[in-house]
Formats: sequence, C-alpha cells, structure tokens
Amino acid sequence: MEATKSSKSSRVVIKLSGKVFSGDDGSEIKKFASMLATIYSDSSSSSSSSISPSAKLQPIVVAGGGRIARHYIGIARSFGLDEASLDIIGIEVSRLNAKLLIAALGEKAYPSVPRDLEQITEAASTGRIVVSGGLHPGQSTNATSALIAEKVGAVRFVNATDVEGIYDSDPRKNKNARLYAEITTKQCRDLLGGENSMAGGYDLMDIVALKVIERSKIPTIVIKSEPELIRNVILNNKAIGTKIIF
Amino acid sequence: MEATKSSKSSRVVIKLSGKVFSGDDGSEIKKFASMLATIYSDSSSSSSSSISPSAKLQPIVVAGGGRIARHYIGIARSFGLDEASLDIIGIEVSRLNAKLLIAALGEKAYPSVPRDLEQITEAASTGRIVVSGGLHPGQSTNATSALIAEKVGAVRFVNATDVEGIYDSDPRKNKNARLYAEITTKQCRDLLGGENSMAGGYDLMDIVALKVIERSKIPTIVIKSEPELIRNVILNNKAIGTKIIF
Amino acid sequence: MEATKSSKSSRVVIKLSGKVFSGDDGSEIKKFASMLATIYSDSSSSSSSSISPSAKLQPIVVAGGGRIARHYIGIARSFGLDEASLDIIGIEVSRLNAKLLIAALGEKAYPSVPRDLEQITEAASTGRIVVSGGLHPGQSTNATSALIAEKVGAVRFVNATDVEGIYDSDPRKNKNARLYAEITTKQCRDLLGGENSMAGGYDLMDIVALKVIERSKIPTIVIKSEPELIRNVILNNKAIGTKIIF
Amino acid sequence: MEATKSSKSSRVVIKLSGKVFSGDDGSEIKKFASMLATIYSDSSSSSSSSISPSAKLQPIVVAGGGRIARHYIGIARSFGLDEASLDIIGIEVSRLNAKLLIAALGEKAYPSVPRDLEQITEAASTGRIVVSGGLHPGQSTNATSALIAEKVGAVRFVNATDVEGIYDSDPRKNKNARLYAEITTKQCRDLLGGENSMAGGYDLMDIVALKVIERSKIPTIVIKSEPELIRNVILNNKAIGTKIIF
Amino acid sequence: MEATKSSKSSRVVIKLSGKVFSGDDGSEIKKFASMLATIYSDSSSSSSSSISPSAKLQPIVVAGGGRIARHYIGIARSFGLDEASLDIIGIEVSRLNAKLLIAALGEKAYPSVPRDLEQITEAASTGRIVVSGGLHPGQSTNATSALIAEKVGAVRFVNATDVEGIYDSDPRKNKNARLYAEITTKQCRDLLGGENSMAGGYDLMDIVALKVIERSKIPTIVIKSEPELIRNVILNNKAIGTKIIF
Amino acid sequence: MEATKSSKSSRVVIKLSGKVFSGDDGSEIKKFASMLATIYSDSSSSSSSSISPSAKLQPIVVAGGGRIARHYIGIARSFGLDEASLDIIGIEVSRLNAKLLIAALGEKAYPSVPRDLEQITEAASTGRIVVSGGLHPGQSTNATSALIAEKVGAVRFVNATDVEGIYDSDPRKNKNARLYAEITTKQCRDLLGGENSMAGGYDLMDIVALKVIERSKIPTIVIKSEPELIRNVILNNKAIGTKIIF
Repeated sequence: MEATKSSKSSRVVIKLSGKVFSGDDGSEIKKFASMLATIYSDSSSSSSSSISPSAKLQPIVVAGGGRIARHYIGIARSFGLDEASLDIIGIEVSRLNAKLLIAALGEKAYPSVPRDLEQITEAASTGRIVVSGGLHPGQSTNATSALIAEKVGAVRFVNATDVEGIYDSDPRKNKNARLYAEITTKQCRDLLGGENSMAGGYDLMDIVALKVIERSKIPTIVIKSEPELIRNVILNNKAIGTKIIF
Repeated sequence: MEATKSSKSSRVVIKLSGKVFSGDDGSEIKKFASMLATIYSDSSSSSSSSISPSAKLQPIVVAGGGRIARHYIGIARSFGLDEASLDIIGIEVSRLNAKLLIAALGEKAYPSVPRDLEQITEAASTGRIVVSGGLHPGQSTNATSALIAEKVGAVRFVNATDVEGIYDSDPRKNKNARLYAEITTKQCRDLLGGENSMAGGYDLMDIVALKVIERSKIPTIVIKSEPELIRNVILNNKAIGTKIIF
Repeated sequence: MEATKSSKSSRVVIKLSGKVFSGDDGSEIKKFASMLATIYSDSSSSSSSSISPSAKLQPIVVAGGGRIARHYIGIARSFGLDEASLDIIGIEVSRLNAKLLIAALGEKAYPSVPRDLEQITEAASTGRIVVSGGLHPGQSTNATSALIAEKVGAVRFVNATDVEGIYDSDPRKNKNARLYAEITTKQCRDLLGGENSMAGGYDLMDIVALKVIERSKIPTIVIKSEPELIRNVILNNKAIGTKIIF
Repeated sequence: MEATKSSKSSRVVIKLSGKVFSGDDGSEIKKFASMLATIYSDSSSSSSSSISPSAKLQPIVVAGGGRIARHYIGIARSFGLDEASLDIIGIEVSRLNAKLLIAALGEKAYPSVPRDLEQITEAASTGRIVVSGGLHPGQSTNATSALIAEKVGAVRFVNATDVEGIYDSDPRKNKNARLYAEITTKQCRDLLGGENSMAGGYDLMDIVALKVIERSKIPTIVIKSEPELIRNVILNNKAIGTKIIF
Repeated sequence: MEATKSSKSSRVVIKLSGKVFSGDDGSEIKKFASMLATIYSDSSSSSSSSISPSAKLQPIVVAGGGRIARHYIGIARSFGLDEASLDIIGIEVSRLNAKLLIAALGEKAYPSVPRDLEQITEAASTGRIVVSGGLHPGQSTNATSALIAEKVGAVRFVNATDVEGIYDSDPRKNKNARLYAEITTKQCRDLLGGENSMAGGYDLMDIVALKVIERSKIPTIVIKSEPELIRNVILNNKAIGTKIIF
Repeated sequence: MEATKSSKSSRVVIKLSGKVFSGDDGSEIKKFASMLATIYSDSSSSSSSSISPSAKLQPIVVAGGGRIARHYIGIARSFGLDEASLDIIGIEVSRLNAKLLIAALGEKAYPSVPRDLEQITEAASTGRIVVSGGLHPGQSTNATSALIAEKVGAVRFVNATDVEGIYDSDPRKNKNARLYAEITTKQCRDLLGGENSMAGGYDLMDIVALKVIERSKIPTIVIKSEPELIRNVILNNKAIGTKIIF
C-alpha cells in the first residue's frame, strides 16, 4: 500500500486561467504545453524538487473559459438565458480549450476531456497528463480544480491566475495593493466575501474552493499564469505568489 | 411567449431536509407526499394563494441524504476515502430517498430521478411533480436546489430545514437565539461565513446557494420541515420562517 | 395513418450558415430567431403557402460552425491534430451556436441540442422548433441536414448559404458566374466534384448531401442566408435561389 | 493463446452476503477487505494452492444489499412500488455497499462499480480487484455472480452466505438439517424449487445461478461468509461448506 | 389516483416468438403489426372485451430472437464465446427484430427500442405501442416480458409461443401430450424443472418468468403465436391456450 | 515524441467486405481471424516488411454488414422505413459481425465493439486488435474506415472488397474491364461519380472515403477480400490490387 500511495502522491493539479486560451493563435497554449511536458518528463531528474527526487510528476490541468466563453455567455445572457445554463455554456467552451491543450501536448496527454470526477480518476490512472475543463454548473473552475485535487490526492494545487497572487485589495484598482506571501484560509474568506460569481466573472480563489482545500488540507498556491513561474514553483518549489496555509 | 412564460412561472422548488427520510418506516415520507399532492392538485382552486388563482403549482423537490447518508459517509471516511467521493455517496443516498418519495407520490410524480440540470428540465416539462436528489459533488443540496430553481425559473424556493428558520446564532446551542423574519443575503453571508461544508454536516443555506438566489433574484424562504408549514407558505403565503430579501 | 403522415409532413429542415453565428453580438441570431418564430406561428394562417393552409410548420434547424469553429480548428490544426478530430471540434462549436439560437427562441424551442438522429426524432416529436449542430465527423452540416430531413420526413430542405444559390462557377472569383434557377442533382454533382472537404472550408451543397436528397426525393432549395428570403420561400414558396430537381 | 488463457484463469468470483455490510460501523467490511487483499497478494507464494503456484489470483467480488436494502425495499413496497422497481432499489444499495468495500481496499481495487457485464470485463482487464453490486432487476446477486463468473472465465465461484452451506432443509428452522459436503445441480434444483424470490428475501443459490454454473461448468462452493473460511477455500482449497458438482 | 390507475391498467404485454421474425421476407411481421394496430385502435369500441369497454389497450411487445439469433449464437459458440456474451448477442438480434416491427407499425409505435426497464416506462408513458427486445443476459425473453408486465402494471401477459400452450409433456416428441386449459404456477414449475436455458434454446415459460408473475399476480396466458388467436384472447377474452393460475 | 509517433505508426486499418460474414457457418471468419493474428504476432519478425522490421503491427478492422444487413434492410425498406434509419440497421448488423470476429480472435482482440471515433482511440490505445462496425448513418463503411485510419494515424488503409481492385468499368458487367495497378484520387472520383449510396448497395471506395484519404494522405490499397492477399500486402508489401496515389 505504501508504494501505491507514494505513486499517487506525485499528481499536481494546475488551474490555467482562461487568458491562456484567449489569443488569436495558439502560441500561448504552445508555451504552456512545453512547460507541462517539461514538468512531466524532467520531474524525476530534478534534484532540487521539494518532492522525492525519484518521483515522476503527473500534471492534471483544468482549463478556464476565457474570451470565447465570455463571448458566448454575453450573447446568451442578452437573450435572457438563465444563469445555470450560462454556466454550462462556459463549461463547454472550457472543454474546447482543453482539447487545444491536449492537441498541443500530443501523445503525452490523455486523449479525451473527462466530464466528471469518475472520468478524471480513470484518465489519471493512465499516468498521462490529464486536461479537463469545468465540470458542474454553479461551480467555478477554481472550485472544480480543488475538488479534482481532492479526488486524485494531489500533492499540490497550483492556481494560475491573471494576477501575481492574492492581494489585500484588487491590484487592478488599487496601486498600493499588497501581495500576500502566505495567507490563511480564514483571511482568504474574509477577503473574498464580496466576490462576484456571475458566470465568466472575476477569476480567483472562491469560497467553495477554499472550503475544499481546507477540509482536505491540500497545499495550494495562487500564482501568475506564466509558464516559467509555474515550472519553477512545481519543480524547484520557488514560489513567487501566495501560499495558502491552514 | 407571455402565456408560455406564465405557465413556467408556477414552479416551486422545495428542498426537503434529509430528516424526512431518516425514520424507520415511511410514515414521515407519506405525510410529505400528501402535502405535495395537495399543493399540486389544489393550487388552482385555492383562493388565498399569493399566485394567480388560476395557476397550477408544480413542485420540484430536492431530497436530502439524512441518517443513511451519514451512515455510509461515516464508514467510508473511516476508510480514508476522499471528501469528493464522500459527496458522491451522499448524492446517491439522496437519490434513493428521492425514489421513496416518488413511490409515495405514485402517478403524480415523474417516474425517474433526474441526474443533471438538463434532465431536470426535461422532467419538469412533463408537468408532473419532479423529485431529485443531489447533483454534483462539492455542492450542498441547498446550493443544488437554488441552481434548480434558477434553471426551471421557479417562482419560489422553499428551503425546509431542521430549525424554524435563520437565527442570529445556532438555536441548538444558544437558547436566546433570535429568529429573523426577514434577512438580507448580505446579512446571511455574514452569519454563514463559518459554516462547515464537510459532507453530511450542518444543513442550512450556504454561500453558493445564497449567490445563486441573489444573482437570479429567486424569492426564498427558510422554514421548519413540517408539511403543514410548507403547505401554508406555498398555498396561502403564510410564512412562519425566514424570508431572504435582496 | 394518412392523418399521421400529413402531420409529419409539416417539418422543414433549415441549414443555417455559420456566418449567422459569427458576429460580435447576437443581433444576427435574433433576426433569424424572429423569422423562425414567424414560420412556426404564422404557418397555419398564411393563405398563399404552398403547403395545405391548415398545416403548422415545424422548423428543424441545423447550425453551422462559422468564425469560432474556424478559430479553434485553425489552432488545433497548427498543433497537428488529425482531421477527424478537427471535425469533432467543429461539431462542438456548431452545438454552442445551436444553444444561442435556442436561447433566442425561448419556450418555442426544444431545450436541448440533439446529438444523433435518434435524439433528433425524439426532439421533433415534441412539436417544438428543434435546433441541432453537426452530428458526425467526416460529414458536412449540409450532409447532416439532408440526413435529418430524410429521418424526420421533411417536406422541404432549405440550405441557407453565403451566396445567392448555386452558380455555374464560384461567384466570389468569377464576376460573370450564372445563378441556376433550377439544377438537377446530376448537374450539381458535376459542378461540385472538385469541392474541398477540409473542416471549416467552402460551405455549400456537397456530394453526400446530394445523394441523400436524391435517394429520398427531398425538395431542396439553396438560398442566400437572409431571414426575409427564407421566410418567403417557406411561407409563400417564393424562391430567389436555386431549386434542386431530380 | 495458452499463456493468455492461463492468465485469465486466475479469476475468482466471490459473492458476499449483504450481512457483511449491515453493521453499524465498517469493522466487518474491513475484515473482508484484508482477506481479499491477502488472496490478491499472497496467491503467488501460497504453495498448497490448488491453482498453479505461480498464478496470481484476482478476486471479482459481488456485494449483496443487506439490512439497508431491506429498509428501503420495505418502505417502497409499503407505498405500492412494483417488484421490478424494488429490485432496482436493492441493486443500488448493493452498489453503495460495493463502494464501501472499494474504499476499504484502496489502490488494490478498481475505483468504480461496474454497471453491466461489459464494464465488468473492462474493469477485470486492469488486473485489480473488482467490486460489483447487483446488475439486473429480476436477477438475484447469486445469479448475477454466476453470470459474472461465466463472463470473466472464473476458475471458481465462491458463494459466501449466512449459513454453513447447503442443507437438506432450512437449518434456521430445522435443528437436524444435514449439511451437504457435495451436491449435484440436480439435487440443488429439487431442494430450491420452493425458494422465495421476493426482493431482499432468502439469500442462497437459486435456479438461475444453478443453470449458469451448470451450462458453463463453473466450479462452485457455498460457504459461510467468514473471512478465514473464504481465504482457506481459495488459497488452500480447504472447503468447509458445500461443493456443487455436475 | 383511481383514474390514473385505471388508465395504466390498459397495458397488455405480448411476448412474440422469434419465429415471427424468421421468414425470408416481412410478410409474417406485417400480419402481426396489423393485429397489434387493431388491438390498439379497436379496443375502445370492442363491446365483448373483458376489459372495461371504454378502456384503450396499449400493447407492450417483446420480440424474440429467432433464426438469425440462432445463426449468430451458433457461430460465436463455435468460437468458444462465453454463454453470457452469447446471451447479449441474442438480445441484440431481438432488438433488430423489434426495429422491423416498429417500422411495420409506423407512427403507432414508439420510435426507439428501449434498453432497460426505465426506458420501457418512459416509452410506455407516451401511450404508443412499445416494442422491446430482450433486456438482460441470463434472462429469457419470457422472464424479461414478465418483468416488463410487472413494471408497467400490465392487466395481462400474453406469451405467444411455437406451440398451442403448455402440455404435460413436449408435444413435439410425444403425440399424446395433453394441453392444459389452466395450470397452476406450482404445476408449471414441476413441469419446467428440467428446461434447458442454453441461449437460443427451448422457447416457453421458464422459472424466473413464473416467479415474477406469481409474486405480482399477473394474469398470464400461453398461446400459439398466431395473430388471430392473440387478437381474440385480448379483445374477446377467448383463450385457446393455457391460462396460468395462482 | 519521435518514439511515440513511430509506435503509433504501426496501425493498419483493414475494411472487411460484408461477404466475410455472410456464410452459413463461421469458417470464413475463422480464416480472416487467423490471418489477422498472424499479422499481429509475426509483424516484428517479418524481414521483408515494408515497415521497420522492429515495428509491431496493430490491425484496426472495420466489418461490413453483408447478407444479413441486406436481409434486415430489405424488409424494413418494404415497410417504408426512411433511408437514414436503414443505415442505422446496417450499422447494427455490422457490429454483430464485428462481435463474431472478436470472438474468433479471442484474447488478441479488444473485447468491445467501439461506437464512435473516441471509443476507437481508447480501444486502439490498448495495443490489441480492434474490430469495429459502421459508425454513422449516411456514411459507408469505406468512408468510416478512412476516417478511422485518419484518427488513429494508420500507416496504411487496406480496403478488402469483393473484386480484385478498381477497374475502369464494372468487372461484373464488362468482361474487358481493366484493373488499375495505381490510380489517382482524381481518376477515382471520375470513375465513382455515379456510384449508388443506397444502404447495402455496391461495396467499393466512395467519394467521402476518397476525400478523407486525400486530405490526410493515407496510403491506401483496394484489394480482393482474401486472407492470403491481405497478409501479403501488409507483411510483404506485395500488392495484387489497386494502389491509390495522390
């Protein structure tokens, strides 16, 4: 059982901001695919890894919806579609984005996009890189990512967002916003109490995600969505972002 | 279109506490089935209804998990099963509970338990009483009920719980807890910030449910899970509980 | 049986060019939704209809992929994804487009997007407007539309494209291209022999579509994708386009 | 082909009485999980095994419904639900029980509960311990277990029941009932002619199970549901129960 | 509730021998389709019916496998395929046969072949003639038909076979075999104790079917598979066959 | 990636004429199974192979419908069933045929018949011989085979038909018909322009298949459906048939 557990221990859940998929071409996606391939292949030889040097890392990626999700949701909302159905549209766009990343990863990726936690488990059991989109209406991709991290027993959940990490106020509005190096889930909840859950809205850790990482004690980091930063935090444990502590 | 919309307007989502399904026999379930049948049949003739006297009411019920969910979850957690999988077990027990209520309702109920929002929509379109259990891991039956209310365009969401409504502190611990007649979603969020989301835990309005009823402005009432009280609030608009306002 | 057959006879399959869904907002989609609603509601009172005046018309619509399909397919192809998988991506975008049209139609539309011919049949049996996207990889939405017309026993197949109808040469390249008022399937086949089936390519009648309409003798018209033209050809039988004859 | 056949030859189907899952805690389930893990791991080193010493044994387990199945079925029957639907409820409870055993087995078990014979085959092909519940209404878990044994080409079917084996009369009613060491399928059929097939009723070999093991000549033993006995009969071929012969 | 119950009371389950589907052309199927259409349409006007004169009868038909099932099963068995998989092949051929009968019935039939008891219920709720094939491996179409009768609350189960009814010995071997006008389920069980359940084998009432009709007290008749006989027993209650009594 | 690509490179798609499955017994199927097993096992040791000597070949087979498909389609068409539904019946018979070949191949074959391109991919990833039937209505098994070849990245597509290859006129009607050793896709299209796509009709390369092999440059050969010929062209690159060139 020990051996089995430690092999499962090498999974890393990475939530990718929808921005990665919002470009006019695939150049940005390609960069992230290269980074994921590096993590996948180099993990066993990386000596400074925080994880046992012999462990191979298996990325489980969750793609956001981004610009095209907002496009579809905006039009459908103008037609009066209910919010739950808008969520479903967002999920479907995130699954198309997942397909692009799978195409960019080639044989290293599991070929299908899983549609629920059971399919995630089956996909992960192949040992390949798994790329998912959203799973359930009413649930942000952040919350979904945390649930996936819980289900696959991930050693880390990396939430790659559009900002450098969690600030004490919105850095896009407040120039003096201070970045937390570490934050407790309790502090987080206080900060995020007013967050907007409209489909396609503000893209950071939310209350459900927080509860999941809290109840299962999942090591979590919020970080800017840049390949080099993500690679560094995973392979070398050098985090330039916000670590969530319990 | 007007006519169609008003016909859809007659749906009422009722979340039933798992306690209803926790007895050793089916007597409690039977009482709730009678109440639901009354709402379903009598709605058109009830003159004091807050809803247009000619409108027929269609209950969409969401069953909780209750004692047997806690039994299964407790054992599985002792075996080290992850929380997401425990959620799934809770959902499956709630679906068995839904089957009992469907059996008690006979021909008045849609015969199957829907498994996602699309199936809810199809079931509701038959005009019969629909009985669902939970839908997604990581989502309380309260949140699921709010999403369902949003999806089917419900005129009201009745959250039947184990207490009289929302108090300013836990009435099971604090004798002087004060019951709100009305509460804003903002006040609610402040009160519920510390709520525990462990599967099978405390059973009341939660943060996701609040956001959904807020974003879609769904008239919501939290009420003690007693057939007569539920009948009264729905048919006669006499609420002895807590109304959530925006 | 006669009565039953004539009730089924009132279905019209309309293939909508992906262009309808390529705008930055939903204004174009809204116009097509209004037109479809008119056909659906007014068909019984329209006196100059070619169809029995008492027959109600049920539109079965097939949405194309358009600009966003080309966006996803272009990126995925640059990653080396195989053509069959590109087809599947195109189908999924066309299904998202179908969702927008369903949202715009509201209660008049069947709420889900069918995924195969069996689901088309079930959706059509509700009597509502059905909106589908593509169904199978390797099959253009034109061919799919013809198969759907065959399966639901449509009285007409209206193929709404980006040009006025079928020309003797590509009107986008040849200023003197002549529009056919009528064309035989044989002539059609000669013209279209060199057509490109790359996913997301040229959008007109193709060889498989031709064979299906030929084997089942489905009255077909190729017409420019403008709401007023489509309405006119269906309700008043005034075709400004190309009629395909056998 | 020889090699392949002998690898498939190492499957053992074990039907576990619902009683295993009827306790208030998971202690009983835990004992059976340990026993199954032992069979799974130790089979290659066990020298006195009746099976080739180098063969690894793969248990395919079928969980019964037990106390909670009877609880749900009893209530639903009191509501007048038809027997076929009661069977389905029993199957769903047996699947929840299967989930508990899977949780107790951890990584050694296939993570999902298969829902039909095709899924059993796929699950078994992973080489892990497979845990199923019932499959079809109108079919006892005994009959289902025999079919599964047939489908996976099991070398043995162990039917673990609440009694020591097959008696010449019901040992719970008749103190002098005699236990068969061996019994022919013909004798079995004579004995079981009067068996009650009411859902949730008497839990032993039934007529369909008998026919299946007869037509496919599956070595079968009926034995008391105790971990040590099951382990002994499988690893050491020491049967304290009733062997069914042809 | 009374009204609802009596509307459900008008269902008749008819099991059709695979022989109906074994001809080189469709002439035999056509005769049975005409008979079923007559029962479906004429039932309300038939004055001598044993059922309330105002009740409309809804046939629920179960098609057997016949000659082509035996062809496929014979070849697959010669390749060593296991019996459970052979059962599945037989079921699939019976579903193809069901499709032929659906085609012959046209609009009067539900368009799809249901695949489990839930789908049977949904299909039956449309009020159309439902045509099923087998459902589960290890279960004869007789047993399946009895389960379906139980599930849909049929007023009668007509088992149309290749012989005139139930004899005291096999009439194909024994010239002096005596036909029962009535037989108890107990007598039946004694007679059928030695029956062969090999897939594609002897085609009459079996032990599982008997238990189902016994536990749910379903009025059952075994009759020769001739359209006129079936029509007569259903519309005029004139049975030339064997009535099973309890 | 190189290594991965070359491992995927060893797939060969073989389309088997329905004639293989049209015999009264399984002797013909058995011969083809032996041939496939030889290709599967011997490929690595075959020195004269056109493929790298160390590559193992994985056959992906597509079974046609043959005599029994024509039997069902003929009857259903006489009942007026639409052509799209006839296609579906043909597909289902081809899947039964696929099951026979799987049975004949035993453990060397993937145990299930895939139902869409995603399932083909998953089945192929197991490394076993995959046997499919048709996939989509409106698509010949030739076109489906070409799509499958595209999806799995096949190194070759062998289309085994009832004639020796592609002739300049129908060899069954014209004694002097000339067999092409090579033919361009352009020539092919000219020849096949008049082909009949009625379900169950003439069985050779069609327009959709041609476009797929053209757009993905799939090396294709049309050859008489004889085991020895197929084995020779695949293992020794000795083609007695028609090579399609671009």
